Amino acid sequence: MHLRYLHTMVRVADLDKSMHFYNLLGLKETRRYDNEKGRFSLVFMAAEGQEDTPIELTYNWDGDNQLPSDSRHFGHIAYEVENIYQICEHLQENGIVINRPPRDGRMAFIRSPDNISIELLQVGEPLPLEKPWTDMNNIGHW
Amino acid sequence: MHLRYLHTMVRVADLDKSMHFYNLLGLKETRRYDNEKGRFSLVFMAAEGQEDTPIELTYNWDGDNQLPSDSRHFGHIAYEVENIYQICEHLQENGIVINRPPRDGRMAFIRSPDNISIELLQVGEPLPLEKPWTDMNNIGHW
Repeated sequence: MHLRYLHTMVRVADLDKSMHFYNLLGLKETRRYDNEKGRFSLVFMAAEGQEDTPIELTYNWDGDNQLPSDSRHFGHIAYEVENIYQICEHLQENGIVINRPPRDGRMAFIRSPDNISIELLQVGEPLPLEKPWTDMNNIGHW
Repeated sequence: MHLRYLHTMVRVADLDKSMHFYNLLGLKETRRYDNEKGRFSLVFMAAEGQEDTPIELTYNWDGDNQLPSDSRHFGHIAYEVENIYQICEHLQENGIVINRPPRDGRMAFIRSPDNISIELLQVGEPLPLEKPWTDMNNIGHW
């Protein structure tokens, strides 16, 4: 029996805020479905070339009582990045906290506006250690 | 800045039980990392032909206080299936509850042993409606 992975869905409290966040990461909207009657929107966002394995943002227009303050227990969504320092700098400049800075040139963790844990991994070998990253402390958990 | 989706990670309380569940779905182990010192295992499992977008099972040998009783608020992981009736029958025969039966020939929801919500979607057009599925009620939520 064949099966195919399609998407990971996350609920969002503020669609604009979340789309902005995933845009900063480098994801683009690939498909959107607004349901007037059900009063919800589904927005699919994917990395370039991976349009068939997006994340799905579920936004309930009248609020969502499923939303947790934290979702560490679920796990995380992981992305490989071209340059972990560059993307962390870019995210930081746009107000995103780097919870686990890439001190090792290899791995970082951030949080979505809904506290979904996102792992960033340097493609290939770790980058040479570099300030200010080597001196940065963890912030919260992820 | 290029980025690439890698995996969705979920924490598991019982590794054998969870691997059995994902095997039933049709996923196969693609990579495993056992860390004696950290006392944890990471098992990557993917659908055939999608070895580059697996789920990652995180298993802490001494238990995991992150594990929730429910994780509906996170969302779900979705898979496309060849025949939604066949896979639901197969799962049911192996003790998996079909929380949202495929009454419409199109969509079903189940739960992993750790209550992760899993969506199953019929590839292409919905299948013709069929008993017993049309008569089945929802069980719990998903």
